[in-house]
Amino acid sequence: MGWNRVAVVGVGMIPFGELFDLSYEAMVQEAYLRALASVDRGLDPREIQAGWLGTCRPLAHGTETLAGVSLAGVVGLAGIPCTRVENGCPTGSDAFRNACLGVASGLYDVVLVVGAEKMRDKSTEESLLGRATQGHPVFQRGESAPITFAPQATRHMHEYGTTKEQMALVAVKNHGHGARNPYAHHRRPVTVEQVLRSPWVCYPLNLLDCCPQTDGAAAALLVRADLAERYTDRPVYVAGLGMATDHQYIVEKASFTTFAATVRAAQQAYRMAGVTPADLDVAEVHDCFTITELMNYEDLGFCAPGEGGKLIERGETGLGGRLPVNPSGGLLAKGHPLGASGVAQLAELYWQLRGEAAGRQVEVRSGYGLQHNLGGTGIANAVVTILTTRRHG
Amino acid sequence: MGWNRVAVVGVGMIPFGELFDLSYEAMVQEAYLRALASVDRGLDPREIQAGWLGTCRPLAHGTETLAGVSLAGVVGLAGIPCTRVENGCPTGSDAFRNACLGVASGLYDVVLVVGAEKMRDKSTEESLLGRATQGHPVFQRGESAPITFAPQATRHMHEYGTTKEQMALVAVKNHGHGARNPYAHHRRPVTVEQVLRSPWVCYPLNLLDCCPQTDGAAAALLVRADLAERYTDRPVYVAGLGMATDHQYIVEKASFTTFAATVRAAQQAYRMAGVTPADLDVAEVHDCFTITELMNYEDLGFCAPGEGGKLIERGETGLGGRLPVNPSGGLLAKGHPLGASGVAQLAELYWQLRGEAAGRQVEVRSGYGLQHNLGGTGIANAVVTILTTRRHG
Repeated sequence: MGWNRVAVVGVGMIPFGELFDLSYEAMVQEAYLRALASVDRGLDPREIQAGWLGTCRPLAHGTETLAGVSLAGVVGLAGIPCTRVENGCPTGSDAFRNACLGVASGLYDVVLVVGAEKMRDKSTEESLLGRATQGHPVFQRGESAPITFAPQATRHMHEYGTTKEQMALVAVKNHGHGARNPYAHHRRPVTVEQVLRSPWVCYPLNLLDCCPQTDGAAAALLVRADLAERYTDRPVYVAGLGMATDHQYIVEKASFTTFAATVRAAQQAYRMAGVTPADLDVAEVHDCFTITELMNYEDLGFCAPGEGGKLIERGETGLGGRLPVNPSGGLLAKGHPLGASGVAQLAELYWQLRGEAAGRQVEVRSGYGLQHNLGGTGIANAVVTILTTRRHG
Repeated sequence: MGWNRVAVVGVGMIPFGELFDLSYEAMVQEAYLRALASVDRGLDPREIQAGWLGTCRPLAHGTETLAGVSLAGVVGLAGIPCTRVENGCPTGSDAFRNACLGVASGLYDVVLVVGAEKMRDKSTEESLLGRATQGHPVFQRGESAPITFAPQATRHMHEYGTTKEQMALVAVKNHGHGARNPYAHHRRPVTVEQVLRSPWVCYPLNLLDCCPQTDGAAAALLVRADLAERYTDRPVYVAGLGMATDHQYIVEKASFTTFAATVRAAQQAYRMAGVTPADLDVAEVHDCFTITELMNYEDLGFCAPGEGGKLIERGETGLGGRLPVNPSGGLLAKGHPLGASGVAQLAELYWQLRGEAAGRQVEVRSGYGLQHNLGGTGIANAVVTILTTRRHG
């Protein structure tokens, strides 16, 4: 079972944060150069045949258009085709997915994916999130991200008895992990009490239930699976690629306690990879808010519906637990630069599966890791990717 | 020779124009429904497994982000994965290319591509083109499209003796073709004298040397080549896919009389399809300005460098000529809604190669057609696609 067409042979990311001192282009360059330098046996840039850039708003090039062409120029590869993908919060993951399709199609042997986002260079009013819904008849009515996720939390609390304390445990876990990750925006452990006493954003979400706004970039180099050993003895293969949507208006959704797009994307990825949640050693999931991670546990099959709160209470998703989730610190601690987030999650899996995650390393047994990225208008878009050290086919 | 992985089995577009009475969503819906209705043996929408949306600025959803998820919802396919691609002027062509990669990868059997753009709903200051370069240290200095293309024209005139009259002949030809195309924005023939006397935009470009700003949408349904005959007896196969970039700053370019990205993309597409320019029955090329079409002739190998002006003078690229170029009227007459343009060019080729282009039909002999879409920051991005009625492999 399992797909065996595409392998990751190098990844790189810059430390996330409020990077006022780095231009958009400098972030992209640095992530790319780090990915290139990470390839065990080296990779000549001239081998790179195509690129994909995941970005929601490339600030330095105006508020509207960047076009993939900029990626080629910025990294010194003018000449190669480059596609810009934009897909809300899972933008980076979808850029990675399209790059995988490019390699699997047989058209390209070696390709580059970069995800990058500037979230902090503009005022809140002029910000990406502030303008994303401008002019839309429904979305512009104050429907910021916390306001969209809050009712999911209250409904989950109502139906399943999920508590504010259980949600806070997600922040405690992920900030604890983030404190061990040199790439994380916030590197300071927090306590349940600190989470519960942090300022209200939108009931039932306090400030520490929310991920920060963060600048960052991440990159990956993908090759045809059968060529991977030219570049490394330890390639990480793409075993499963799932992506799905849901109705984009909150009022159209069948349930507030599950994200249908996640469930569908996970089914695709598990089926393609030929694995179940029990086979996973590690997962990087979309914890834009603490409640989101608890719902992801359920949607991804880590536990039964409604049991997310109990799973975090039992400590099973922390480092040392049965299935460590977000050893990187997740979006809550590492930050969430939209276009970069998905690629950064995949970079973390690459390091974890290769045993290179130093102070935040999970135990690798089966050699499978899962990445999950959620968002888009109406929380209606999800990507699930499964990486593995095991060769299939 | 030749690729044989992907077939087009249906296309649709809405008549282009200033569509103040249609929302962005209504344009997308209509193009999709027309593509669906065009499939000879029918196609159940539930067979569509993935979508790609080419769009630079989806106005109704704000000035920044649409995310592919909207495509799924708007066409009643919530659930399927949808990617938004943005890549400047060749946005629609690149969406089509990524959709082809998706089918060729083996992951999807049936996919949808929609290209759409609203160019007229906002003021010039707030427009897509007006804002595209905002904040950029170089591009924001008044470098609008005519200002970028004008020096290519003056240099071509200087080096090769290309004349204003030769450029005007492109407008005369394409507006003549457009008058026969019910999908065209402008449907009125023009004379050389009218072109030369139209208001100056930027020397040596008069108003009728420039394409208009136009709203529009176009769609295509792609399937695995070996499944095509389920849907039609007359599929049109994707034989070649080329895309390339150039240095994105004008000052970095090696020449002003050729577009390096076009040359590279064409080489890729011809090689993949196993054909030469002599094998083409028809071409839809990027005539954003009259000079661009003359340069395309040279870059695409329709004539030698510097001979573009003579080629149009000899009438070889008009309907009835050796190689009709832009029988649709091209961007000059049909219009140029960025995300839609490339998909609309491919729709025209589909109709032409199937003999369905009515009053603007070319003579089909070899069964090959070429599509070319150019642009992006610094005129540094080109896509060339070759379609054919011939089955390869």
